Amino acid sequence: MFHLLDRISCPEDVKKLNIEETHVLAEEIRAFLIDSVSKTGGHLASNLGVVELTIALLRAFDLPEDKIVWDVGHQSYVYKLLTGRRDKFSTLRKYGGLAGFPKTCESEFDCFNTGHSSTSISAALGIAKANILKGSDAHTVAVIGDGALSGGMATEALCDAGNLKKNFIVVLNDNNMSISKSVGGFTKHLTKLRSVPAYFTFKSRIERELSRFSWGDKIALFLKKFKDLVKHILVGNTVFDDMGFTYFGPVDGHDVEMLTLILNRAKLVRGPVLLHVITKKGKGYKFAEKHPAVYHGVSTFEASVGISSGKRHTTYSRIAGNTLCALAERDNNICVVTAAMSAGTGTDEFAERFSRKFFDVAIAEQHAVTFAAGLAISGLKPFVVIYSSFLQRAYDQILHDVCLQNLNVTFCIDRAGIVGEDGETHHGLFDIAYMSAMPNMTVLAPASFAELEQMMRFAASGAHQGPIAIRYPRGYLQPETKTDVSPFVLGIPHTVRQGKDVCIFCAGLMLTIGEKVCALLKEHGLNPTLVNLRTLFPLNTEFVTHMAKKHKLVVTLEDGVVKGGFGESVAAALAEREVACKCLVKGYAPVVPHGSPKELKKLCRMDEHSIAEDILEKLNRKGEI
Amino acid sequence: MFHLLDRISCPEDVKKLNIEETHVLAEEIRAFLIDSVSKTGGHLASNLGVVELTIALLRAFDLPEDKIVWDVGHQSYVYKLLTGRRDKFSTLRKYGGLAGFPKTCESEFDCFNTGHSSTSISAALGIAKANILKGSDAHTVAVIGDGALSGGMATEALCDAGNLKKNFIVVLNDNNMSISKSVGGFTKHLTKLRSVPAYFTFKSRIERELSRFSWGDKIALFLKKFKDLVKHILVGNTVFDDMGFTYFGPVDGHDVEMLTLILNRAKLVRGPVLLHVITKKGKGYKFAEKHPAVYHGVSTFEASVGISSGKRHTTYSRIAGNTLCALAERDNNICVVTAAMSAGTGTDEFAERFSRKFFDVAIAEQHAVTFAAGLAISGLKPFVVIYSSFLQRAYDQILHDVCLQNLNVTFCIDRAGIVGEDGETHHGLFDIAYMSAMPNMTVLAPASFAELEQMMRFAASGAHQGPIAIRYPRGYLQPETKTDVSPFVLGIPHTVRQGKDVCIFCAGLMLTIGEKVCALLKEHGLNPTLVNLRTLFPLNTEFVTHMAKKHKLVVTLEDGVVKGGFGESVAAALAEREVACKCLVKGYAPVVPHGSPKELKKLCRMDEHSIAEDILEKLNRKGEI
Repeated sequence: MFHLLDRISCPEDVKKLNIEETHVLAEEIRAFLIDSVSKTGGHLASNLGVVELTIALLRAFDLPEDKIVWDVGHQSYVYKLLTGRRDKFSTLRKYGGLAGFPKTCESEFDCFNTGHSSTSISAALGIAKANILKGSDAHTVAVIGDGALSGGMATEALCDAGNLKKNFIVVLNDNNMSISKSVGGFTKHLTKLRSVPAYFTFKSRIERELSRFSWGDKIALFLKKFKDLVKHILVGNTVFDDMGFTYFGPVDGHDVEMLTLILNRAKLVRGPVLLHVITKKGKGYKFAEKHPAVYHGVSTFEASVGISSGKRHTTYSRIAGNTLCALAERDNNICVVTAAMSAGTGTDEFAERFSRKFFDVAIAEQHAVTFAAGLAISGLKPFVVIYSSFLQRAYDQILHDVCLQNLNVTFCIDRAGIVGEDGETHHGLFDIAYMSAMPNMTVLAPASFAELEQMMRFAASGAHQGPIAIRYPRGYLQPETKTDVSPFVLGIPHTVRQGKDVCIFCAGLMLTIGEKVCALLKEHGLNPTLVNLRTLFPLNTEFVTHMAKKHKLVVTLEDGVVKGGFGESVAAALAEREVACKCLVKGYAPVVPHGSPKELKKLCRMDEHSIAEDILEKLNRKGEI
Repeated sequence: MFHLLDRISCPEDVKKLNIEETHVLAEEIRAFLIDSVSKTGGHLASNLGVVELTIALLRAFDLPEDKIVWDVGHQSYVYKLLTGRRDKFSTLRKYGGLAGFPKTCESEFDCFNTGHSSTSISAALGIAKANILKGSDAHTVAVIGDGALSGGMATEALCDAGNLKKNFIVVLNDNNMSISKSVGGFTKHLTKLRSVPAYFTFKSRIERELSRFSWGDKIALFLKKFKDLVKHILVGNTVFDDMGFTYFGPVDGHDVEMLTLILNRAKLVRGPVLLHVITKKGKGYKFAEKHPAVYHGVSTFEASVGISSGKRHTTYSRIAGNTLCALAERDNNICVVTAAMSAGTGTDEFAERFSRKFFDVAIAEQHAVTFAAGLAISGLKPFVVIYSSFLQRAYDQILHDVCLQNLNVTFCIDRAGIVGEDGETHHGLFDIAYMSAMPNMTVLAPASFAELEQMMRFAASGAHQGPIAIRYPRGYLQPETKTDVSPFVLGIPHTVRQGKDVCIFCAGLMLTIGEKVCALLKEHGLNPTLVNLRTLFPLNTEFVTHMAKKHKLVVTLEDGVVKGGFGESVAAALAEREVACKCLVKGYAPVVPHGSPKELKKLCRMDEHSIAEDILEKLNRKGEI
């Protein structure tokens, strides 16, 4: 079906193609990706945008000796496709299948794992410095989007790389569109650079003409000087020149020939190079070109008709967004801070309706949190809405700027717990552990939409002085039991079911599992108690020990890591208070691969059957289930 | 004695002075600071550098309505002195006394607490946006050093602030000298800006002349345009212009008149302003001018003769540095990554002797860690040497880039535990908790110089695959017992003293306390066991439960927070394994103020007497001590 793609099994095969064939290959790759991703789900628009760039990179560099680090990494599908992993695409993001991000364990062509934003330049610089120490002349390339460039560690790395002597290229993949619309100062700068078509066309034409002659280095040198001159006249110094980089660009990111030419030129430059490439997210698929954000991460869909905007489940994110709107209608002090994730966090409606109080600070979690601290110290009520695994990047800002000053900042931690297909870098498994250790912090976990709303209203009420973290899962699962029967009171758990044999403490999404565990235990003649803790920290140790004394076994169910979680606090409290009662702490290991949440729960023995088994075993009734 | 300083009790008093009087005031402030800090210890050089800048800020702004956020905050002494806190200077950094950093609880003139680097612009931006929402026209100023500017979150904030409409001024206090020598791309840029004396002198003179006429706004506008033109010709666009700021500078930071004039101009600018001020660290004290790094943070000394370079205690930092040199002599793969702290971490000798393998990445902890991951994945053996409380800034990079990839990066965590006079923002209380929850991480704590060396050699040996964190305290305290009698083996604790009543598990610095606790318990007829755990995570639960079963009471002593620490793991293990034994988990609360380590230990009941008391109470022998 794909007469060229069928012949590609490694980067060397890409090099053998002539330039016309690369155009055909690009078309075939797009057709393959649209078909494949529509069947598996995954990241589509960003990959359609880097087809030519990836082909050019493979043609210009010698892999795997040369190294390419893909920032974030969800745009690495084309790369995976051309480095021998085509046959695995039907397993993309499935348990045991191809990962949606680069994985060194998957291929020798993946040199560094990514997932979170803005790490690529640091990692590539480490690899480049190692090459220098080892006397290797291999090249190192970081490919970073304009959105990821807003992350502070990217600037830290750019500044540090400015002194490097050779073989280091940063490709800025500028699609004028991070996951949400990119914001901030660099964007302004890039817009300015982008707006010089005359320069671009003029330079391109000259370079293209001159490239027919093979004068090599001398031409490159001349062009560099000429380019510098023209650029200075037209756009002034770029921020990248100021950092010690040689700036090339902007270059049409869909012109394989030009890209390859300039990459080869960049290889000859003595110092670090920044190659500014303009790409179109979703390129070649009309639906994705029109709505690149919709086609950023997709579930399965019909490729010929695109994603239908049918009715979708209401999610915890949507409830959070709606509640913020409802709160802001009555309280002028409510404001929202997010980090380039307004759609994902359900705060897009708030952004539209309360634009003055909505602050999207770009992919800059550290700044987001300390900025919120500044708002809070001035008497406003900021809600910082960020995914659990990304909020980790602001660990110190939460601790140093919010918690030590005991400020009223509310953290709405979306995507807490297992997220599924995005895998190990995206699961939100650490927030309970790290938040609970921080001074003055209160950690809440709603088990239902109603509880989420209750907790957010509590945080907004100002009844409590100090930071509050509310962690809630991806998706829409809610327990069978109505959990909102009793109103939320800080520190007061809700006993969902009163029994006498086993006391199960859980919170958040784990309540839905806890209910099923109870049903299984009842089948085995046990009469379990089920408690929805709601407040995870500070832990109500009085209540916990009181309940424990009335049961043979205490079980804690937690969709986070065991170490530092609330389960460990429960167990420690029993030991310190000398409660003679068995204890089983259930939670996740810190590394959980990609797959469906259902598969991952089973893998980690966090599904109802495994948990019931472990409980029976702990009660010396092994083998009954 | 200080005839002008004696008259200053609030910022209004500073405004009343004529310009000649400000010069006298500056001299008096310097004399006061040198005298006072030489008697109490504290940060000297940075404060001597901002005397005129602080005076000018107080003259130009209306405090406390206008807000000044001091980045890091150790340069806020002059500010404290002029905002009514002069009489407390004899208590500086002492328990219960004046803090060495801004504290909102100390004065209405302190608007935001700082301590860690690079947070000021984010905080100030939050305050400024809150002012806009509240309809206030107050000004917000962030004062940030050139060193702190290298931290990525400063760039995140600068980028975000670019769109602000008014009343926001960032003062870049450029002394060409962060704590160590500043490095990186911004430094290069600043050097270029600094190198235009012609422009500076010329502009200054014109402005000074024109300022005699009070044409107000029109003049300011004219000057702005004129300045822009001259600047573009002489230095091109600055990186700050690219971010949306109006750049003023460079300005002589020791010229009160000029500074006040330009600050007043800056107040009129519509958008955000970056004022680039050149100061001299240590200004006015010959010893500090000559050796600003030596006079950055000082103990008490004789003001008239300066700090004597007498023999000092060998510290854990020095041992770490020496060991790294010894390792590098035999192993080409050893390299060191630090974040602007080569002297403080004892790695200065390594930097000199192995400069190619020494990477000071500036105040950029996030980049430091991922950069190290890049080195490690290329087969090198990086040691990341950073203070505990600063390493917190790289939480996600440790987790996402090092731990998930299970790379051989060794973290040498200096200043772990209580640091003393620097207070709540600088104590290293969280590393055990957050490191232990991370995948594949091993956490070690040496109790002596010899153990530190053993552990570093173990990490360098490559015998263990995966990241290793070695946490060690500030200072030089070592236990009485020779702890290096048994060689270090991963996971194997060292039983220092075998008894039978109470089993005390400790590690690191707490062994020195544990020994004293044992002595006290023996006086009360008890026969305690003392165990130096050495490996804190993964915890050897077999050993712990084995020991617990032979004792009535298990005690854990930890110089870190209780939540998430190893003590909680010990207690949880006893509960889960149903060991019928009392349990006492001792550690620090997450907020510990400033003071001497001795006072703080007592305050937190972590001194030997308090601990012994708590043990006796737990054994129902209350009141015996």
